[in-house]
Amino acid sequence: MAQRRVLLVSNSTTHPTGYLDHCAKDMVNFLGPDVKTILFVPYALKDHDGYAAKAKERFAVMGFKAASIHEFEDQQAAVASHDAMFVGGGNTFRLLKTLQDKNLIQIIRRRVLEQGMPYMGASAGSNIACPGIFTTNDMPIVQPSSFLALGLVPFQLNAHYLEPDPTSTHKGETRAERLAQFHEENDLPVVGLPEGMMIEVVGDKAVLRGMDRDVRLFAPGKPMETRKTGATLDDFMQAAEPAHKRIKHSE
Amino acid sequence: MAQRRVLLVSNSTTHPTGYLDHCAKDMVNFLGPDVKTILFVPYALKDHDGYAAKAKERFAVMGFKAASIHEFEDQQAAVASHDAMFVGGGNTFRLLKTLQDKNLIQIIRRRVLEQGMPYMGASAGSNIACPGIFTTNDMPIVQPSSFLALGLVPFQLNAHYLEPDPTSTHKGETRAERLAQFHEENDLPVVGLPEGMMIEVVGDKAVLRGMDRDVRLFAPGKPMETRKTGATLDDFMQAAEPAHKRIKHSE
Ligand SMILES: [Ca+2]
Ligand SMILES: [Ca+2]
Repeated sequence: MAQRRVLLVSNSTTHPTGYLDHCAKDMVNFLGPDVKTILFVPYALKDHDGYAAKAKERFAVMGFKAASIHEFEDQQAAVASHDAMFVGGGNTFRLLKTLQDKNLIQIIRRRVLEQGMPYMGASAGSNIACPGIFTTNDMPIVQPSSFLALGLVPFQLNAHYLEPDPTSTHKGETRAERLAQFHEENDLPVVGLPEGMMIEVVGDKAVLRGMDRDVRLFAPGKPMETRKTGATLDDFMQAAEPAHKRIKHSE
Repeated sequence: MAQRRVLLVSNSTTHPTGYLDHCAKDMVNFLGPDVKTILFVPYALKDHDGYAAKAKERFAVMGFKAASIHEFEDQQAAVASHDAMFVGGGNTFRLLKTLQDKNLIQIIRRRVLEQGMPYMGASAGSNIACPGIFTTNDMPIVQPSSFLALGLVPFQLNAHYLEPDPTSTHKGETRAERLAQFHEENDLPVVGLPEGMMIEVVGDKAVLRGMDRDVRLFAPGKPMETRKTGATLDDFMQAAEPAHKRIKHSE
């Protein structure tokens, strides 16, 4: 069985640079010299053609040939025939529902977990690499058949992680309060990943990459912990059993 | 068939006042002289006993006798035997899942839509009065069996509505961008209700109540519109068929 390789990027665009600029070098290094073709997944946004054009152009500049999965008649075959995949950001519910409806969950899992196809996601594309979509910030605009997702890593991610604004009088929950609610219902650890940051997973090793921003770790029953670029998350990779099976959910 | 009476409050606590202070007078006026007993629903939070104690105390100060639904063996009978109900805020997914699991959706719909029992909600409790929970801000910490909710009104609500911060460089979607995504998938109108504001529905009439804050109306294919306290939402009450049936969803 080939090694798992997963790159989870918090966000597609980091102020003030352009689309994928902040993570392009990390993507190239992560993919390595053997990857030539990338399968792009545009399903988190409504405009598949426009999104695909933008991604293809950006990957061409990096030196890769990208195709968009929505252009293929046989989408399972497309997952099987490309060297790597990149799942773009947008709405996590719409993305997961589309992959479920098109019956693509199991083939992606097999390609990544058994055959070692490198998987890259940004924002929603990173959320669905987790056991479930329980810690997305997105609005539930459509209903997936299940909140369980690809389960390529054994922890949950909170992308676009934001510290509470100490001057705000707004009473909506802060991000940390939302994650505390998650831990009232589930015991999976959560990585609060700010914009500009990413997690690189190779086999059972995970490392933080990106800018010099604080990453917040929320493990149930433990105080919040902070790590920086270069730190490992290996302790978050130690799920006793497959994370997919550990989630309490109603199906 | 008695008249429908629904009071949807954006939030439970408005800075700098205490729990339900900003809407207590509106609640008393809405309920009228005949209502003596209120059934409180604490399921949006984890701590039912603590939440119930807080709500009972607050309603006692208003002059009502409140009981919490979680204290009853026969919860359907409790819905039937109280004069009015109030569903508190917290997490919308947890709230809806609990009502589904306890088989309370249909009895609440009957009591409100056929028997005219006054329904009050705050935040999550207001979200579930809509056709579905598609426009909640909450994190999907648990999976309800369906996103369809009580459907007591024919429009969607976005509680704690917030204007975008023009100084922010954060790339997470703004509230208006999230609602535009919703309208890529659904055609229900959405009321963006800021904190401190509420919607009072009597029969087929709806009026904005509360502080002097701008309420934003999002109807699919139309420019955003702004209304103030005292304005009607009667045009949002004109669903051609029951809103419950209009939603596109995957079940
Ligand atoms: Ca998003
Ligand atoms: Ca909430």
